[in-house]
Parts: sequence; structure tokens; C-alpha cells
Amino acid sequence: MSSEGGNENCLGWAATDPSGLLSPYKFSRRVLRPDDVSVTITHCGVCFADVHWTRNIQSDSMYPLVPGHEIVGIVKEVGSNIHRFKSGDHVGVGTYVNSCRECGYCNDGLEIHCEKGPIFTFNGIDVDGTVTKGGYSNYILVQERYCYRIPDNYPLASAAPLLCAGITVYAPMMRHKMNQPGKSLGVIGLGGLGHMAVKFGKAFGLHVTVLSTSTSKKDEALNLLKADRFVLTTDKQQMEAVAKSLDFIVDTASGDHPFDPYMALLKTMGVLVLVGFPSEVKIHPASLNMGSKTLSGSVTGGTKDTQEMLEFCAANKIYPEIEVIPIDYINEALERMVKKDVKYRFVIDIKNSLK
Amino acid sequence: MSSEGGNENCLGWAATDPSGLLSPYKFSRRVLRPDDVSVTITHCGVCFADVHWTRNIQSDSMYPLVPGHEIVGIVKEVGSNIHRFKSGDHVGVGTYVNSCRECGYCNDGLEIHCEKGPIFTFNGIDVDGTVTKGGYSNYILVQERYCYRIPDNYPLASAAPLLCAGITVYAPMMRHKMNQPGKSLGVIGLGGLGHMAVKFGKAFGLHVTVLSTSTSKKDEALNLLKADRFVLTTDKQQMEAVAKSLDFIVDTASGDHPFDPYMALLKTMGVLVLVGFPSEVKIHPASLNMGSKTLSGSVTGGTKDTQEMLEFCAANKIYPEIEVIPIDYINEALERMVKKDVKYRFVIDIKNSLK
Repeated sequence: MSSEGGNENCLGWAATDPSGLLSPYKFSRRVLRPDDVSVTITHCGVCFADVHWTRNIQSDSMYPLVPGHEIVGIVKEVGSNIHRFKSGDHVGVGTYVNSCRECGYCNDGLEIHCEKGPIFTFNGIDVDGTVTKGGYSNYILVQERYCYRIPDNYPLASAAPLLCAGITVYAPMMRHKMNQPGKSLGVIGLGGLGHMAVKFGKAFGLHVTVLSTSTSKKDEALNLLKADRFVLTTDKQQMEAVAKSLDFIVDTASGDHPFDPYMALLKTMGVLVLVGFPSEVKIHPASLNMGSKTLSGSVTGGTKDTQEMLEFCAANKIYPEIEVIPIDYINEALERMVKKDVKYRFVIDIKNSLK
Repeated sequence: MSSEGGNENCLGWAATDPSGLLSPYKFSRRVLRPDDVSVTITHCGVCFADVHWTRNIQSDSMYPLVPGHEIVGIVKEVGSNIHRFKSGDHVGVGTYVNSCRECGYCNDGLEIHCEKGPIFTFNGIDVDGTVTKGGYSNYILVQERYCYRIPDNYPLASAAPLLCAGITVYAPMMRHKMNQPGKSLGVIGLGGLGHMAVKFGKAFGLHVTVLSTSTSKKDEALNLLKADRFVLTTDKQQMEAVAKSLDFIVDTASGDHPFDPYMALLKTMGVLVLVGFPSEVKIHPASLNMGSKTLSGSVTGGTKDTQEMLEFCAANKIYPEIEVIPIDYINEALERMVKKDVKYRFVIDIKNSLK
């Protein structure tokens, strides 16, 4: 096991170089501050961001790097100023752990858009100069604002993927008023994000169509996720049959793909929201102009939306499909995620496997 | 003068081949129907669409082709079912003269989005099978639904450009709620459409920035059109100084141009509306995702918006900047328009020059 070489109090798994291979790593976390919540991590979801930064795709990775930003756990201790949380509470931490708390966006509960930039949960430089370390670890300290209450009846393991995958699709769905029963939704890409978009869509009362390049998704899309319709996007006839039939599309695909064929599926004034990160978006202007259509982007959500989404999921019994794994399976899990071999989110059982 | 060779009752100017050169041309218009308004045309605005179709850019031009869809005139006669208009009324006709009148879009006054497609004012095939002929002619018959009331105090010549250029920017500005005093608007392209976007922006109480590739536009942008700010988009420093400062952008440029530098000027959740037709739109996903920004398209507007816009212009004394020309100057005018040598819209004085 590697370590910082000091007085380490936290055990995690870290990548130490761009190979991205993770191994056990001991490091120090700060001493509890008056506004902090100390969380014993029970579970951490595995997001594609974990692959991205452990492998230094963005060329800004700071090693050793402890990934993980779909964090769920139990409050162990709270600072002297904390009244919202108490020891034993079920809580979550998402993709960011700090922001300026002064700008208009922070004041509106849209901290992800903080004018000074949010401080990300891992590989971020916090205001005290330390590099943030994520949820592949046995505990975390977080300023209470960035700590969410997990409803009591909600399984902790299932809550983890909501903190990134869930909010990433929920926030734009709400912003673009997709919660209108009877309207129609298309979902591109059936991974961690896409399968949540299907679930939210059904809970909103939408007619949901899964748009996929592979028939292998069909059975689960219809029978497990309860989508109303499956369209094989490589089949021209199937695509033509659903032309101009959708009010909304949530596009979760991060691989490069054309946009014009999907825009053609939107009704007049329809909206496609991009939440994936393909290398570029190329579109014919007529795909926007004719029918006055909209292409919009989004990235996770603010603290207000996140708390609201957690409560919506509990109230509507929406649970991500997860595969719970021990921490020592993580390197294989990341590799499988790259190969899209996951249904639909890995969640690390930190509590029982990180010791 | 060329003619159809029959019993022609209407005098116009037509292009007869893809050279696009216009010359006098006599043709027949239909007999007045019970739902028709017969309009003696006094003025017709010159839109880029006139160049586009007289020169067969779309490969669908039907010659002889009489262009013109910014039509203004005086009611000469009305059909037996018409009660909304009477002889002597000032009226306008825009980019379309028919639609199914049965679909949801038609019912909502959004005939431009008619499910069967609107019938365009020229080079369209009407339901009776005839090819529509536009406003470069001395009169037109139009079903009353597609005929707009020009407020009495509004100069007829000035009203013409509102019927395409005006509504093309007004409709998306209203749809995207740009009429919020105190918000900020950027306008790309200062031609027929762009100069109207500046005028609407000022009337809505917006802080208006003209974004231009040429300093030659600066003086008029600020002093004639009353924009608040001028940014030379080729100047990196000027662009950086206005980063993240705009709530909205109306992009009227039809030439190819990058989008990422303009998206960078939008605030979080900002909206860029494209009303031009570049050959393609290429954008980095981060330009949409980071800041949850929106790229939307639009094309003219419905009858409801168009009538509302005419009344808004009259109430707020908004007048397009026009250069009134005789019909025999039209070939030179179209050539000048291609070279962007027009401030800001040519309007043909049909009444006094087409005889």
C-alpha cells in the first residue's frame, strides 16, 4: 500500500499514473471544521469521469488521484455549527464539494454554475489549496451545503448513482419542462445516464422511446426499464416511422454520432438535450431552423435540484439498476465500463470491502 | 415583355432562368374567391430569399418565377365571406399564403409549422395546383387568414420588411422570452434581420451588443440603431472582455462562421437563436454543456405572432431602415444585396414604378 508518508487517517484506492490502475492508498483528510459533516462512506458509484481522470484524458490529473463522486454514507460526526444533520443520518455527496457561496448562481442553488467555478469532489483544488479526494475511500469531510439527505427508506447502494448520473439527466429534464404527462421522450444511449432518463421519463408520465444502435438493448429497454418503444437507429424504416414524433430527446451518448437524424425525430419546437461529451456536435442549420427546434446542453445540477431529485426518487420508487462490487474489483469494473459492459451502474460496496 | 400567352391580368417582374435576371412579365391571377382579399400592392421588400430562388440555389425554382414575400398594399376588393377587411384597408402578406388550417399548429396560429407544410408566397404549389407568384407584381389575391392588418399610422413602405425580416427575429425573441428589460442581447450580422433584432432589443429594454467582423458597422450600430455596445469579433481582447456577459444572442449571419466563440459570450443558461442559414453548425459539446447553454433555430413565424409584431412596431414606433427603389432597379438591388451593400432593406415602390 502506498501512502502520503505522513499521519494518514483515511484509506482509499488511488491511481498513481496515467495507466489509471488503482491500488490501496492511505492519505490524510482535514480535521473536522465547524461547518463540516464527516461521512463514513458506505457506497460509491462508478462514473465514466473516474476513468477519464484516473487515465489523465484531460491532461490535468494530479496523482495520486482518488476518484469517486457518487458518494453515499452515514454521518459519523458533525461540526459545531451543523444543525441540519446529525450522527447516523444517511447522506450523499455528489460531483462538487465547494463553491464561492456568494454569486448569483450559488444563491440560486445552482452551485455547479458558480462564477468562480465549483470545486470538484476529486482532482479539484479546494480553497485551502488541498487537492480533493473522492469517494473510493472510507470517509469524507464536506461542508454541509454540499451534503444531501438520503430519504430514510431509500437503499444506500441505490442512492449512489443518483448523485451524478441521476442529477445529470434530472436537472435538464426539469429545466426543459419534460415533466408533462402525455408528452413523448426519446433517449439516446442506454448506460448509467440513459437508463435513468428512461426511469424519470416513465415517472413523469411520458411516452418513452429508447433509440439505440443495437437490438441487444431492446428486451431490457422494454421489459426491465419499461420503455414504451424501441427504435433501432440504424434501421432507416424504423427511424422514418418515428419522424417528428418526439417532444424531447435526452442524448446521453458520448461516442461521436450524427445529430441530424435525431433532430428529425423531434416535433416542431422539440428539444434535444445533450448530456454526453462527443468530440464535436455537427448539425445542419435546417435541423434547427425548420420546426424551430432546440439543442441544449447540461452538466449535473445544483444542490437544490439534487435534493429535490433524491426526494422524487424515494417518493416514486425510482431505483437505478446497479451491480454492487467490492473495491478490489474496481480495475476490472472500469475496464468493463469502457467496453460498455455494465447494467447499468457499478456501485462499490465501500463499507464491506475497503478495510 | 414576356407573358403566359393567355388572358393575363397581372403585371409583375419575373426571373426566367437561373441567371436570376428579372424582367417584366404578365400573368394571370385567379378570380376572387369568397374568402379572398384582393390587394393592390404598393410596396414589396427585397429579401435574400428572392436572390436564392430566382437563381435556383435550392434546385427547385419554377420559372418564370415572380419573387417577393414582404408585401404591403391596399385592399381593393374582398370576397363575399370577408368581414375582417374592407376596401381601402392597409394590409400585408408575408412568406406564406396557405396552410391546411386543420392541424394543431394551424389551430395555434403557428401556420408556418403546418403539418402539411405552409404554401409559400412564391414558387409554392398551392392546393389548386397553381404555382404561387409573389409581390414583385401589381396585385395579389390571398385567403384572409394570411393577410395582416397594417396599423393605420404605420408607413406602408416601412411595413414591408416586417413581413419577413421583422417576424423572423421577433418570433424567436418572444418565444425565448427576450422581452425582459435589463437583460442583455448580442446580435450577429447587421443586415435586414440583424438591424431589426437591434431595434426590437432596444424596444424590449435590453442592453444590446452588436457583434460584427467589421468596424465599418460601428458608427451606425451605435448612433443610428442605438445599440449600447459594439464588439469587433476579430479582436480577441474585445471578445474576452464580454465573455459570459450575454443572456441572449440572435445570430442572423448566413455566411459560415464559428459558433464556439459566440457561445462563450453567453451567460449560464444563455440562448443563441440561429435565424440565418450557414452551410453547417459545428460546435464543441462543452460550449453547450458547460453553463447549460442552448442553441435554437427559428424560421419566420405564425399569423398570430405576425399580427402582434405589426402592432408592437406601430405602438413602439419601430421602423426598419429602408432604401426605396423603383422596380427597374431590382437587378442592381439584388446584386448589391449579395454584396451586403444595403442599409438595411430594399423596398420596391411597386405603386409608382410598376406600370
